Amino acid sequence: MSENTVYTLGELATLLAVELRGDPDVRVNGLATLKSAVPGKLSFLSNPRYVSQLADCKASAVIVDPEFASACPSAQLISSSPYVTYAKASQLFQPGVSARPGIHPSANVHPSVVMGSGVTIGCNVVIDAGAVIGEGCVIGAGCYIGERSRLGEGSTLYANVTLYHDVKIGRNAVVHSSVVIGADGFGFAFDGRQAIKIAQLGGVSIGDDVEIGAGSTIDRGALDDTVIEHGVKIDNQVQIAHNCVIGAHTIVCGCSAIAGSTVIGKYCTIGGGVGVIGHLKIADKVMISAMSLVSQSIPESGIYSSGTGLLESKEWKRNIVRFRQLDDMAKRLRELEKLSQEKQEQDKQTQDKQTLGK
Amino acid sequence: MSENTVYTLGELATLLAVELRGDPDVRVNGLATLKSAVPGKLSFLSNPRYVSQLADCKASAVIVDPEFASACPSAQLISSSPYVTYAKASQLFQPGVSARPGIHPSANVHPSVVMGSGVTIGCNVVIDAGAVIGEGCVIGAGCYIGERSRLGEGSTLYANVTLYHDVKIGRNAVVHSSVVIGADGFGFAFDGRQAIKIAQLGGVSIGDDVEIGAGSTIDRGALDDTVIEHGVKIDNQVQIAHNCVIGAHTIVCGCSAIAGSTVIGKYCTIGGGVGVIGHLKIADKVMISAMSLVSQSIPESGIYSSGTGLLESKEWKRNIVRFRQLDDMAKRLRELEKLSQEKQEQDKQTQDKQTLGK
Amino acid sequence: MSENTVYTLGELATLLAVELRGDPDVRVNGLATLKSAVPGKLSFLSNPRYVSQLADCKASAVIVDPEFASACPSAQLISSSPYVTYAKASQLFQPGVSARPGIHPSANVHPSVVMGSGVTIGCNVVIDAGAVIGEGCVIGAGCYIGERSRLGEGSTLYANVTLYHDVKIGRNAVVHSSVVIGADGFGFAFDGRQAIKIAQLGGVSIGDDVEIGAGSTIDRGALDDTVIEHGVKIDNQVQIAHNCVIGAHTIVCGCSAIAGSTVIGKYCTIGGGVGVIGHLKIADKVMISAMSLVSQSIPESGIYSSGTGLLESKEWKRNIVRFRQLDDMAKRLRELEKLSQEKQEQDKQTQDKQTLGK
Repeated sequence: MSENTVYTLGELATLLAVELRGDPDVRVNGLATLKSAVPGKLSFLSNPRYVSQLADCKASAVIVDPEFASACPSAQLISSSPYVTYAKASQLFQPGVSARPGIHPSANVHPSVVMGSGVTIGCNVVIDAGAVIGEGCVIGAGCYIGERSRLGEGSTLYANVTLYHDVKIGRNAVVHSSVVIGADGFGFAFDGRQAIKIAQLGGVSIGDDVEIGAGSTIDRGALDDTVIEHGVKIDNQVQIAHNCVIGAHTIVCGCSAIAGSTVIGKYCTIGGGVGVIGHLKIADKVMISAMSLVSQSIPESGIYSSGTGLLESKEWKRNIVRFRQLDDMAKRLRELEKLSQEKQEQDKQTQDKQTLGK
Repeated sequence: MSENTVYTLGELATLLAVELRGDPDVRVNGLATLKSAVPGKLSFLSNPRYVSQLADCKASAVIVDPEFASACPSAQLISSSPYVTYAKASQLFQPGVSARPGIHPSANVHPSVVMGSGVTIGCNVVIDAGAVIGEGCVIGAGCYIGERSRLGEGSTLYANVTLYHDVKIGRNAVVHSSVVIGADGFGFAFDGRQAIKIAQLGGVSIGDDVEIGAGSTIDRGALDDTVIEHGVKIDNQVQIAHNCVIGAHTIVCGCSAIAGSTVIGKYCTIGGGVGVIGHLKIADKVMISAMSLVSQSIPESGIYSSGTGLLESKEWKRNIVRFRQLDDMAKRLRELEKLSQEKQEQDKQTQDKQTLGK
Repeated sequence: MSENTVYTLGELATLLAVELRGDPDVRVNGLATLKSAVPGKLSFLSNPRYVSQLADCKASAVIVDPEFASACPSAQLISSSPYVTYAKASQLFQPGVSARPGIHPSANVHPSVVMGSGVTIGCNVVIDAGAVIGEGCVIGAGCYIGERSRLGEGSTLYANVTLYHDVKIGRNAVVHSSVVIGADGFGFAFDGRQAIKIAQLGGVSIGDDVEIGAGSTIDRGALDDTVIEHGVKIDNQVQIAHNCVIGAHTIVCGCSAIAGSTVIGKYCTIGGGVGVIGHLKIADKVMISAMSLVSQSIPESGIYSSGTGLLESKEWKRNIVRFRQLDDMAKRLRELEKLSQEKQEQDKQTQDKQTLGK
């Protein structure tokens, strides 16, 4: 972490719009966890589980819920949402990566490209005909932006991002390295002998405030666009196939894959390594746990899982053999239940007879 | 979708080699689904499930099976394989990405490279010694092609593709951005203290008409080549390890991974997120459903699956606890069956005695 | 494989520090498997299962355990670890990719970069302010190295690798194409309406002798660094999230994903397609089988698995229905056991009464 950003606690209280309890002239130069903080650092308590760490914390100040403020030996920035306040503080301490405003002479920008003011175009960037780059965008080294693609104001592409043609991205996007947006959706018609390519004639349409992690891929649509709505956050190595719609503010964790034409609701959380098959509809506020396979539509909000859980391999092998016998076991169980019931009825009849016979 | 490509229905019937029922002079400028089509568009009915949408379809013409032609209020292009005809039509409407024939001055091409006629070499492309680029190839911005690698005629590499040395690709290949072909296979010999690298001395050999999706990786062989046969279609973020052989016309969906030395047959369909472990042999025409783990060879054509299916997490947790008890349950079930059988035999003997005693 | 590297068996015995049984002047020009070897090749027997192939092997020499030496019709290089000796031999036969010592004129290197002697900087490489490149490093075409990042001596980045700022890599690293190291960890605080980005202020710290496969991503830490220790080998398309620690000499196979803040021990083997959720602690020498989900910490060395194993889909569907009934089945089984036990006790009492009554 770079050490050159310094704030007084008074400045921080103003910038973060929180109450300061302590000396406003104390200076902090970075963030640290409760355990690793030294004087000069700002820390935070977001999980009450760690409240016992407050007593020994060496930080000059701590972002803390009013409930725990008294347990804090240092100055406090009082917030009812300490994790959100920490997030905002972290942005204040982000190390400056030197801006290189302007267009680097090694960049190849087509004369028809429309460029907003204050853009930063890095080394070896290539921007093709008809593209539009919004005000204040930062395009890292080696990026390629295809024909007619549009990037909203304040967006950042890190190095080596590829946007194909007709990709629209909104404002304040953050797109990490090796991301590919707008490659062909995977569509073929089998003619009995070979796969005939279906040209992918749609584009990709991405809203504002979207972040896309390193190595993720979002394919262009077959006829209509693939759509990523406002505020969606996508982690690394996620695959989003053609004509998916990802609802606003949904979170997609690393290595998940959404197959073609699936529509995911708003405010969902798709765990890491999840697979969602094609042509499904997932409701708003659905959570899918890590590495689940979603093979049917989910019409109601809730938490969903699949898988067997982890076992020691020896134990796992014993149980997995039985998994293959499960249908057989179920039938045998039903058979025993029938026998047991018949027997009970028989016994009852015998008893009734004996009672009568007495 | 770009709107500048226009055909008359007469021209389309000729180009697609199908019968036209309707006015040959009507002009269409693009493709659309039955539901979203407006006048001026060509649509198609490939799934009979949607036949009811024909009545209200606003398209100027529809590609349709003769069986459903009469349900169509517009002109018809009659095809017994409407999806294949749609695929061919989609290629006619592909938006022109401006060609830049020739070698861009920013490209670095080694003087020993052999280049066919009509090639398009984009900005900042690097081609190393001894490479061969076939007639009409298009190499996107920022691609790297290593020493002695060969690209057959009519092949396309989109921006930022990396081919290592000694990678051979056939004709009409389509390779999407961020693909890496020919990186080292993952081979190490453990000497008891650390992993000793096994240099990967083989190459990669890819047939004709192969498509490889964005972010996929195909490793070079340890001694012999990794082989991808003709007509194979590989989706995004697929990993193919060293010395695999993928049989002709096999389809590998997104995010699947094939481990080392596995041989997959022809005309297989590997679903999304599938894992296949190493050194297996999979027959022709095998289908693997999404996110299955293939842990043994498959000697016969068929459909194969693994996994537990998705449940609401509460319900899933109840069942997953039982999965760990499955072997125990199976033994207890067997025990009850034995008891029940003994009881039945005992009862029968008692009955026999009683009968005899009467 | 290039054919221009030739050694006599005498030279090889010296270079590999093993005993030669045979003519030291015989020349070999490459490696091959027992089955495919022709005269002029060196082969090896590492798996005793293939000992029967020795008799017909056409190789000029074979690396072999002393136990099997007599079965070998050709010359022998005697090694008690033939696979390790093969690994070392493979490095001797690695085809020379022509070195281009020096800095290619198309590279953009910031004047403040500190460069060791004998470095090779490829076409279009971009190195930002304050970076340090160790002696003898080779940086492939199109790589980007961010501010203050450091690369130890003898390290290789293949084409199109991206290192963000403040990434430290040790000596003799091998980093394959499309790898991204130091992208932002996936951290957001939800304010009830939208996700607020947590700036990722840590870096990435990677030890010596680490190899990272094509398309893998290693995120920077939130506050402290993400750590990869010495000798770790990472396959293709692996995702390592912020603040993970991967212990020395651990192997991570292709397409695996380790979520944030998880600490993995030394000498572990993480199979292909494995997912490990966040904030876990995995002991040393743990093996996880392919496509398992690790959802709890593992305090002891051992082999662990999850999943159901592969079945033909028809059979799988029958069993998967029962998986959803498993908790119900377990309860019904318990009920039958209770009934059976009650019945047995009842029968015993009846029998006792009858015995008494006699």
